[in-house]
Amino acid sequence: MAQKPLIGRDTRLCMSLSARPGNFGTRFHNRLYELTGLDFVYKAFSTTDLPAAIGGIRALNIRGCAISMPFKEAVIPLLDGLDNSAAAIDSVNTIVNDDGRLTGYNTDYGAVRALIADIDPATPFVLRGSGGMAKAVAAAFRDAGFRDGVIVARNQAACQALAALCGFRWLADLGEGAPILINVTPLGMTGSPPNELPFPEAMIEQAVIAFDVVQYPPETPFLRIAREAGKRCITGEEVAILQALDQFVLYTGLRPSPDQVADAARFARQ
Amino acid sequence: MAQKPLIGRDTRLCMSLSARPGNFGTRFHNRLYELTGLDFVYKAFSTTDLPAAIGGIRALNIRGCAISMPFKEAVIPLLDGLDNSAAAIDSVNTIVNDDGRLTGYNTDYGAVRALIADIDPATPFVLRGSGGMAKAVAAAFRDAGFRDGVIVARNQAACQALAALCGFRWLADLGEGAPILINVTPLGMTGSPPNELPFPEAMIEQAVIAFDVVQYPPETPFLRIAREAGKRCITGEEVAILQALDQFVLYTGLRPSPDQVADAARFARQ
Repeated sequence: MAQKPLIGRDTRLCMSLSARPGNFGTRFHNRLYELTGLDFVYKAFSTTDLPAAIGGIRALNIRGCAISMPFKEAVIPLLDGLDNSAAAIDSVNTIVNDDGRLTGYNTDYGAVRALIADIDPATPFVLRGSGGMAKAVAAAFRDAGFRDGVIVARNQAACQALAALCGFRWLADLGEGAPILINVTPLGMTGSPPNELPFPEAMIEQAVIAFDVVQYPPETPFLRIAREAGKRCITGEEVAILQALDQFVLYTGLRPSPDQVADAARFARQ
Repeated sequence: MAQKPLIGRDTRLCMSLSARPGNFGTRFHNRLYELTGLDFVYKAFSTTDLPAAIGGIRALNIRGCAISMPFKEAVIPLLDGLDNSAAAIDSVNTIVNDDGRLTGYNTDYGAVRALIADIDPATPFVLRGSGGMAKAVAAAFRDAGFRDGVIVARNQAACQALAALCGFRWLADLGEGAPILINVTPLGMTGSPPNELPFPEAMIEQAVIAFDVVQYPPETPFLRIAREAGKRCITGEEVAILQALDQFVLYTGLRPSPDQVADAARFARQ
């Protein structure tokens, strides 16, 4: 393990902004700084004044900032530019600060692209959800060449807008399901009623791939049923790790080894 | 040694703002967090946009901030209130953030008060300097009961104003000296010409107490001559340690033991 320098005047700060900060990003990034010996430190923040928080990032030359709910769209007018990953879906989950110039990225988009890269894009899917993360996931499927997709959501206006944005269909209910089932709602998240499912059990049994973006618990009721039925599973934890890794590379310019990433992911999970 | 928690979502950030950040505060505070097991982290920052930096402290709920040159007076209108230590001299070196309410303190003032507490206030002094730190030192001498003082400075207007504020005399040159000689200019600081002195050698030989607020080097040419001549010396390092300790207590509510303070001071000096 490289010797991480003590915090000093040259240490760079990276951070996160969200309504309810978790520990995953803080532990993942700080662990990677330790493993790579980089002179960085990471800390999660919350705020009730987004413009002042972004002004502070600029004024204090904070190198990077992860953006979570509910700031992913509101932050856009406060930035100087958007990377294509964020511009295409009007949703920012990462800010990179180059000496006062703030650029918005969406690393969730890239993470999903990577996780579905080997799936035949002719496969039909049903995606449940219509929020900021649903936009990132739907755009990733679209750009990977998927055409036969259905968006289902409680919020009909958002659902229709997202379907139109990506060239998919929308439905008011789940219909008959599809080989790929994607949950981008909080259903099944820690704190939900036990065994809460985004898709009926019969629909899961008939699917081929189950994709849940919920990060906690690492195995949701949806994914447990899918795994027990022998389906291929893509987890919210995989998305969280890959997108955090992309943030790390954007902030530091360094790509850690797979072993280092696996170590940091284990460490962050605890 | 207590077990300092890893940085997580509940870790509080304290910081410093100055044109040219040093490492002393960062090392002193972080070492004390480690020794006391407090869930805090400290990091030095610079800025070219003071209002946005202070807005960021509020928006990110950063617990405390040390203020150095050149922000000690400019920061005042950006705060919600001033402690007496800062109000009396219109100079802030410490901000405490109580859930968005920012109060300015001056811990240099208190540090100097503590260091001169056992000196007979009937003793005459000459103080050289007229900047923000000179105000803190002069006010400390005034409030400790000293009456027979002379302020000497290149900037005549600032010198007269400071003398008037504290009820001391002012002089355009050093005059005949006094039993207490106080340097609050950068003369003798690391990077100065060798053997640069704020007072003539003969004047130092005739003094009783030599007080230099310069922190680097820990022993200036002024203090070296004074020490070799057997004078009592008060050093800028002592001021730096005491004022940083007061900041620590204001930020955390915890008073570390003398051993812990000595350890942190040794650690910060390296």
